[in-house]
Amino acid sequence: MNEEKQPLILISNDDGVFAKGLKVLVNAVKHLGQVVVVSPDKPQSGKGHCITLDSPLWYRVSKSYDHDVLIYKCTGTPVDCIKLALLKILDRKPDLILSGINHGSNSSINVVYSGTLGAAIEGAIHNIPSIGFSILNFAPDADFDYASNYVTYIVENVLKLNKNKSLCLNVNIPYSEPENIKGIKIVRQAKAYWDEYFQENVHPYNHKSYYWLGGNFVNKEPDAEDTDEWALANGYISITPIQIDHTDYNEIKVLKQWNL
Amino acid sequence: MNEEKQPLILISNDDGVFAKGLKVLVNAVKHLGQVVVVSPDKPQSGKGHCITLDSPLWYRVSKSYDHDVLIYKCTGTPVDCIKLALLKILDRKPDLILSGINHGSNSSINVVYSGTLGAAIEGAIHNIPSIGFSILNFAPDADFDYASNYVTYIVENVLKLNKNKSLCLNVNIPYSEPENIKGIKIVRQAKAYWDEYFQENVHPYNHKSYYWLGGNFVNKEPDAEDTDEWALANGYISITPIQIDHTDYNEIKVLKQWNL
Repeated sequence: MNEEKQPLILISNDDGVFAKGLKVLVNAVKHLGQVVVVSPDKPQSGKGHCITLDSPLWYRVSKSYDHDVLIYKCTGTPVDCIKLALLKILDRKPDLILSGINHGSNSSINVVYSGTLGAAIEGAIHNIPSIGFSILNFAPDADFDYASNYVTYIVENVLKLNKNKSLCLNVNIPYSEPENIKGIKIVRQAKAYWDEYFQENVHPYNHKSYYWLGGNFVNKEPDAEDTDEWALANGYISITPIQIDHTDYNEIKVLKQWNL
Repeated sequence: MNEEKQPLILISNDDGVFAKGLKVLVNAVKHLGQVVVVSPDKPQSGKGHCITLDSPLWYRVSKSYDHDVLIYKCTGTPVDCIKLALLKILDRKPDLILSGINHGSNSSINVVYSGTLGAAIEGAIHNIPSIGFSILNFAPDADFDYASNYVTYIVENVLKLNKNKSLCLNVNIPYSEPENIKGIKIVRQAKAYWDEYFQENVHPYNHKSYYWLGGNFVNKEPDAEDTDEWALANGYISITPIQIDHTDYNEIKVLKQWNL
């Protein structure tokens, strides 16, 4: 294939340049185009759409997984990585941006907190179709390989079928034997929240309390079959399209009646 | 007034506990209820919905502006401040959360990047009506006082009229003489983006390049009278209700036709 005609695929993530999920993502799609990785030099979970304004950024080439994929690491957040890639590193606009594969779910409310999705949403803001991938295996030694064929299949179809320049997809893959995955559901974000707590501990030297965030996920509508949570709980891969417009149009009607 | 019956108003911001806008916000609403401030101990602009997962948080009482307002400062992001306030600091659920007054606009696409709005959105996720306030004065010595009466008016009305527990309002106030502000418009988020660049400089010692993000705001629909940008450009305060559900429902229909 002529390299000029290959789609350019920019890949980032929020678990950092050394994460297993990043390597699996690269290997799942590198035959589909020219792949360049620009990822954070350290884990950036929970960074949401954070950008770095109060300090400069640095980047440099990192060790490559193999000889045909260029990998850069950057000192910033996932969103910073996308901005640096588009403005400084790449010599043409990518055809597609991929982020992940995240080590843990980014379904429902997690889209708000997720650095993986932050990178994908930033791509869509720049009118580049973007996909965030996550798997629901939370084990420290999680196997990401089982997700590989599904990632390839979804990326192939987006490259072939998508006409929407600001497409942003949130793809979550259940933890299951590949033969038990029932298929793909196009679904909305479920109404859910984190029932959180702060674990309080005492500093060993100054004896002051410090607080570490913990929490349990609560799905408010477990029976709603049109949601990502239902799809995942029932053995399906969930795909939720994400939009940049956060306006609550129903609430506009209510507020107008206040006659402020 | 019986203190037990007063609304509890939690206030945070992203410019940090020493910011002028925070003090003006406190003074604009402290007669409307019991006010408690929980703010970051340093500026947190551009933090979006970032939460701190990789390190613990600390908080302590800060110097009070006056004797009837308790002020805490916290080592985390604006969203961390809201979580700490709700889970550790306050002894009852607040009736309202306010964030700001931000030093600079949070209209249109800025809602995605804004720490000010991050705090307000976190409030709405917890089913507490929340408002982020911003002024469009970018001068280092910006006068925030002119916004004060409008802030009071909007908060009074939300306390009196709102029935929506997950209300989240993005309020932007134009920079104008008070007598020139024409009124309030309930509007949607305009389609806009930042035309960005990285300013490249060289480290004085190691001679490596570093990059600092800059950019110019571009409104893609300056003539759309139902947008926040149009309202602000024409002398109105803009109020945009924000929703937590980021699903793109139109795109769901498109994707279903792909038959994945």
